[in-house]
Amino acid sequence: MLGNFAYHNPTKLYFGDGALCYLNEELPKYGKVVQLIYGGGSIKKNGLYDEIVSILKKNGKTIVEDGGVMPNPTVEKLREGVRIARENGVDFLLAVGGGSCCDYAKAVSVSVKCGEDPWDKYFIRFEEPTCEILPVGCVLTMAGTGSEMNGGSVITNHEAKLKIGHVFGDEVMPKFSILNPKYTYSLPKRQMVAGVYDIFNHICEQYFSGTDDNVSDYLAEGLMKSVVKNSRAAVLDPENYEARSNIMWAATWALNTLIACGKETDWMVHMIGQAVGAYTDQTHGMTLAAVSLPYYRFIMPYGVAKFARFAKEVWGVSEEGKSEKELAEAGLAEMEKWMKEIGVSMNISSLGVTPDMIEGIADATILLDGGYKKLTRDDVVRILKESL
Amino acid sequence: MLGNFAYHNPTKLYFGDGALCYLNEELPKYGKVVQLIYGGGSIKKNGLYDEIVSILKKNGKTIVEDGGVMPNPTVEKLREGVRIARENGVDFLLAVGGGSCCDYAKAVSVSVKCGEDPWDKYFIRFEEPTCEILPVGCVLTMAGTGSEMNGGSVITNHEAKLKIGHVFGDEVMPKFSILNPKYTYSLPKRQMVAGVYDIFNHICEQYFSGTDDNVSDYLAEGLMKSVVKNSRAAVLDPENYEARSNIMWAATWALNTLIACGKETDWMVHMIGQAVGAYTDQTHGMTLAAVSLPYYRFIMPYGVAKFARFAKEVWGVSEEGKSEKELAEAGLAEMEKWMKEIGVSMNISSLGVTPDMIEGIADATILLDGGYKKLTRDDVVRILKESL
Repeated sequence: MLGNFAYHNPTKLYFGDGALCYLNEELPKYGKVVQLIYGGGSIKKNGLYDEIVSILKKNGKTIVEDGGVMPNPTVEKLREGVRIARENGVDFLLAVGGGSCCDYAKAVSVSVKCGEDPWDKYFIRFEEPTCEILPVGCVLTMAGTGSEMNGGSVITNHEAKLKIGHVFGDEVMPKFSILNPKYTYSLPKRQMVAGVYDIFNHICEQYFSGTDDNVSDYLAEGLMKSVVKNSRAAVLDPENYEARSNIMWAATWALNTLIACGKETDWMVHMIGQAVGAYTDQTHGMTLAAVSLPYYRFIMPYGVAKFARFAKEVWGVSEEGKSEKELAEAGLAEMEKWMKEIGVSMNISSLGVTPDMIEGIADATILLDGGYKKLTRDDVVRILKESL
Repeated sequence: MLGNFAYHNPTKLYFGDGALCYLNEELPKYGKVVQLIYGGGSIKKNGLYDEIVSILKKNGKTIVEDGGVMPNPTVEKLREGVRIARENGVDFLLAVGGGSCCDYAKAVSVSVKCGEDPWDKYFIRFEEPTCEILPVGCVLTMAGTGSEMNGGSVITNHEAKLKIGHVFGDEVMPKFSILNPKYTYSLPKRQMVAGVYDIFNHICEQYFSGTDDNVSDYLAEGLMKSVVKNSRAAVLDPENYEARSNIMWAATWALNTLIACGKETDWMVHMIGQAVGAYTDQTHGMTLAAVSLPYYRFIMPYGVAKFARFAKEVWGVSEEGKSEKELAEAGLAEMEKWMKEIGVSMNISSLGVTPDMIEGIADATILLDGGYKKLTRDDVVRILKESL
């Protein structure tokens, strides 16, 4: 049964090769001073930076530089971004990069006109913005987080060893996002498959919850099948436009609230993975991959019917001669095979986690309701040990 | 491969039992004079009319009555609605009913401030609005058309024997729609299954086109499976909330542009069905159902791989021991079985079409590109004869 919900996703998307030209249609809607947010500088190497600067200038914008956003944006960087925006009277935030840049831009957008410290207000107390929010636009160069069409923002506090996400409302979603699959071609394979696993896990987090049979479950299965098929093709040929475009589009719909409508959701792989990330600063998708199988094998008995459906519908496992539990196990075995095939991290040791960190990571893991079993701290320790 | 596209769907949806209370959140955003659009008066019998009038009054609105919108809204009614809006200085159009009311409200919305005749401008010349557009809100009482979250509007001109749809841009989409599955309980079974087939065919029209393997195809398959399953349950028990809520939600996503993104689409079942509708004034979904199987059996040889995929993925037909064509045929046979089971019209004779009308209906059929074979007028005649 579909529970009650509201759905509103006003982000405008421009998708395809050549989509950048639509920046010319969007920029006139916003103010003169643009904070240009980007990461480590790969966009300077591939020419995208120059292209965007030229479009901004053509549209009469004043550019305020804000590069160096790291893969897991830190609270210190966030405070710096807020300072830059305030000092320069910024009107509009343009994020060029992957989910980190877009997440960061959203965190800046709700903090510039806000008197309080953003970490405390949004990531510790989970308050909603009460101040004016700066508009955000996004030019996406990596598929994974779905940040281009949602209100999510994840910020890391290394000192506190916490990596926390806040899902803001529709007023914080990017006003527009430009998605050109070709921008993702130059990504190293490791980053690409980390993004792929992030997408896949977003779908799992929303799928493995509840006992109802919702439209969302069918949409989730379709998205998963498309991601599996296209990731296999993209690993063989990173410049396969069909594969990269489908992965990019699936990423957007995997986490823009649609497939969570009217149902419960889990998110414990993200909670454990983010705690691993707070300790290791490793790539988000890899931290999720490394804890996924121990987590799903742990909760499977509590939601065995859904895992059996997953085996049949997503992986095409035949149910003949299998008990429901065997069918469920066979589905997770297929998932494991695929994960190894595309080359994601299969354990947290390879990400630098040592046994002495387990207790700390368990402490940093937020325990949520919504999954097939509410984990205890002991359960998290057990899952982490099995992930070593 | 995903072609280039833009996606923007700003309609806000409130879904579930009790969703009507959100009207109180939305109404203050719009002007004082509200044109209350509804159909034959069923909402007066079931109390919804009184509830809405009370909410409008509580919000200080002046109500301008506009009832009597017919299942296939006519150009004469459209002109009347425009006159009502102009004479009363209407600020906001609130449609309470099914797709017809919502389609009609959108047609009024683009015509009130426009000097030209709406039929000529929008449905003959397919021009875009160049005037101010009145905002539209919708309280949906029937699942089917998807009009609650798209820019589509279909108007019938009986004199010219034409039933034509115009898909307007996002500025014409409802600002909000309220979807309470319980409002659909009181619908006669014939109307319910006509809506179900309308939904299913919207998905087919977008699915049976192109040879690529897009995310959209997987989403379409998921939606179709959900519609088939839930329609079977709803026919047995119209007050099955799980079934009715999933049907209502699938209807919205079957036609709000998502599953058409980046791919070609067909729409010839709608073109032929609408021409049948112009001649018979029969329920939209039934006219589609009555011509569907002859149409799909006619085009199947031109897109056999997709029809084989349809058989396997949507209907679970085993491919063992079958040629691709046999598999494709088996899928359509399953679809036929389901259509008979839920009780939709299986031929146009039962809708009042007589052989002497065939040539006229063929003349009224708009021939579109996009399907697996571009039909000739002779093809349409042949399909209509097989639909008798």
